[in-house]
Amino acid sequence: MEKTVNEVITKDQLLKDWQAHRRLTRKVIEAFPEKEFFNYSIGGMRPFSEMAMELLGIAEPGLREIVTGISAELNEQMNHENKKQNILEAWDNATQKINAHWEKIDAIDFNKEIMSFGQFPGTVQSALAYFIENEIHHRGQGYVYLRSLGIEPPLFYERD
Amino acid sequence: MEKTVNEVITKDQLLKDWQAHRRLTRKVIEAFPEKEFFNYSIGGMRPFSEMAMELLGIAEPGLREIVTGISAELNEQMNHENKKQNILEAWDNATQKINAHWEKIDAIDFNKEIMSFGQFPGTVQSALAYFIENEIHHRGQGYVYLRSLGIEPPLFYERD
Repeated sequence: MEKTVNEVITKDQLLKDWQAHRRLTRKVIEAFPEKEFFNYSIGGMRPFSEMAMELLGIAEPGLREIVTGISAELNEQMNHENKKQNILEAWDNATQKINAHWEKIDAIDFNKEIMSFGQFPGTVQSALAYFIENEIHHRGQGYVYLRSLGIEPPLFYERD
Repeated sequence: MEKTVNEVITKDQLLKDWQAHRRLTRKVIEAFPEKEFFNYSIGGMRPFSEMAMELLGIAEPGLREIVTGISAELNEQMNHENKKQNILEAWDNATQKINAHWEKIDAIDFNKEIMSFGQFPGTVQSALAYFIENEIHHRGQGYVYLRSLGIEPPLFYERD
């Protein structure tokens, strides 16, 4: 009982929340017209495709590094051929791999100090929090891109 | 030791992370020119002042409701007199109150089911996560507003 009262969130719940966020981000990718996904931006920022590739470069490789202890390289590019479908397929592939990596998460101490991608110091907890927060941050920017294109973004609280 | 390995995040760390996010959002408010804070928007969205008032309406009242059990009303407006300083003062006031409320958080079961503001069902954990995620989401939108105004936003990872 003590444990229930004092625990903020379980590892299982964290994975559920993360994947729920990733489902919402996937919907934002889907909502973009093909061309604007790769070309449209505001204020000199990156197109949403570039942000999506950053998120792809962080999520699965970052978690893999955490559960395996083997250093990962940060790679924010992929051969997308200007096709949204290629990014969506990479997204779904990462979804499956994240779930598979998570099977090893029980053995991981979230207070352990790590160096993500050989350059970002923190703990397992702060690294995973950063991965998710960075996704929410950029997704929010995608919402503005969509609105300025006259497109209604997916509802923020619908994560199914 | 078992506890350390299995705990994702402590309540103390959650408060620290939340207040770090709130410091960053405060910097985003500060970065806006006075006029654009209240008037500027993209794609028919709200000016950042309106988003900031939403965040003010949620954070302290939402946490107060959680720790006291007394229902709070959602109020996303305040008498700002078109002065950014009034919003910043409300922000700092909320910062202090959040810290004070948090002194009662040890007694709170994060799995307890609650109804925030009489309308949003969830658990204490999901409610607090939503408060923070919603802030990151809207702050990301503020970044686009700033960039489109030619203003460099604060660095996402600097929370001091």
